[in-house]
Amino acid sequence: MKVCTLAAVVKTPVTMEGAEKAYKQVPISKADGSPNFSFRVFTLDPGGHTPFHAHDFEHVNYVIEGSGAVVDQNGAETEFKKGDFALVLPGEKHQYKNKSKSQPLVMICAVPKEYE
Amino acid sequence: MKVCTLAAVVKTPVTMEGAEKAYKQVPISKADGSPNFSFRVFTLDPGGHTPFHAHDFEHVNYVIEGSGAVVDQNGAETEFKKGDFALVLPGEKHQYKNKSKSQPLVMICAVPKEYE
Repeated sequence: MKVCTLAAVVKTPVTMEGAEKAYKQVPISKADGSPNFSFRVFTLDPGGHTPFHAHDFEHVNYVIEGSGAVVDQNGAETEFKKGDFALVLPGEKHQYKNKSKSQPLVMICAVPKEYE
Repeated sequence: MKVCTLAAVVKTPVTMEGAEKAYKQVPISKADGSPNFSFRVFTLDPGGHTPFHAHDFEHVNYVIEGSGAVVDQNGAETEFKKGDFALVLPGEKHQYKNKSKSQPLVMICAVPKEYE
């Protein structure tokens, strides 16, 4: 069993091409013995975004703070905000954007542990 | 892709023996095509708790609102609160308790989709 608070988890900049003003934490990791999936947390500062890309695994999201949009494979944006959940399926091109000018967007992005 | 807000998800009482004042929602489900895991949300009203039990799959938790405790297999309690994460491994006996007299405890409890 592990219990941890997000503020105590190391936060690192996301260096992947196409990411801007994005930071990553992994509060529940394969390093903790998690048998199937990892809970990562991304913080997107105002104007920040993740890459617009696709991959072979899913994302399951929960918005902890702030608001923004999920971009789908056609470029259409769906707004999401604190308290919302999202599911991006394997192979779906997607991007997360913080469209606020002042507030961070903080969200869980769970993935199979092999891809944490 | 799916985006949903928690307030729009059906909430049902947990009828499992040993649960008290507990309610369940499943915002991200195998019914949505989630390939590996499901995000369930449990609300424990003040004084509520889940069963003290063990099973062959893990829980990954995030506390959305309120505070309470996770009980381990020895009966020891670890406090957790809004913003905290927890991992309960397969086979670990555990229980979640809301020890508040006034506030609900609302938490994500992710599991492999077969056990949602």
